[in-house]
Amino acid sequence: MGWFNYFKQSKPTSAKVAKERLQIVIAHERLDRNGPEYLPQLRRDIMEVIRKYVPISDEQVNVQFEKGADFDVLELNIALPDRDH
Amino acid sequence: MGWFNYFKQSKPTSAKVAKERLQIVIAHERLDRNGPEYLPQLRRDIMEVIRKYVPISDEQVNVQFEKGADFDVLELNIALPDRDH
Repeated sequence: MGWFNYFKQSKPTSAKVAKERLQIVIAHERLDRNGPEYLPQLRRDIMEVIRKYVPISDEQVNVQFEKGADFDVLELNIALPDRDH
Repeated sequence: MGWFNYFKQSKPTSAKVAKERLQIVIAHERLDRNGPEYLPQLRRDIMEVIRKYVPISDEQVNVQFEKGADFDVLELNIALPDRDH
């Protein structure tokens, strides 16, 4: 399933449940399985960066991590809090 | 084109040109086109975070930014420097 299709499928259909979302996908293509792993620490750092802009709790973040043969993929799905207009 | 296909297509075929790569895709699904834009500043912050782990110059980073109707997508493709084994 393509990246853009993912967004289209999960688009909210009701204004009442509509949320702004931030999705971050980090893929590390590795040549050496024994080389350094960046993603676990990167995940924490990036969460901190995002908190500079929007207050988010751990419960608002869905994390998926996949270890492939040649690369690792980390995916963060974040439901942004409602803003006052 | 799917996320994983992208990686398979661009996989290096020669060990001599093989590079470790880091790809970061950030998508911000927005409900309000007049709401805050995070991505330009997030890009700078995330680059700084990555530099904590690997020394990368601006030339090693390919940046693509797409503004859609409902969401913005920022894509960073980073060729990681060779490591000493």
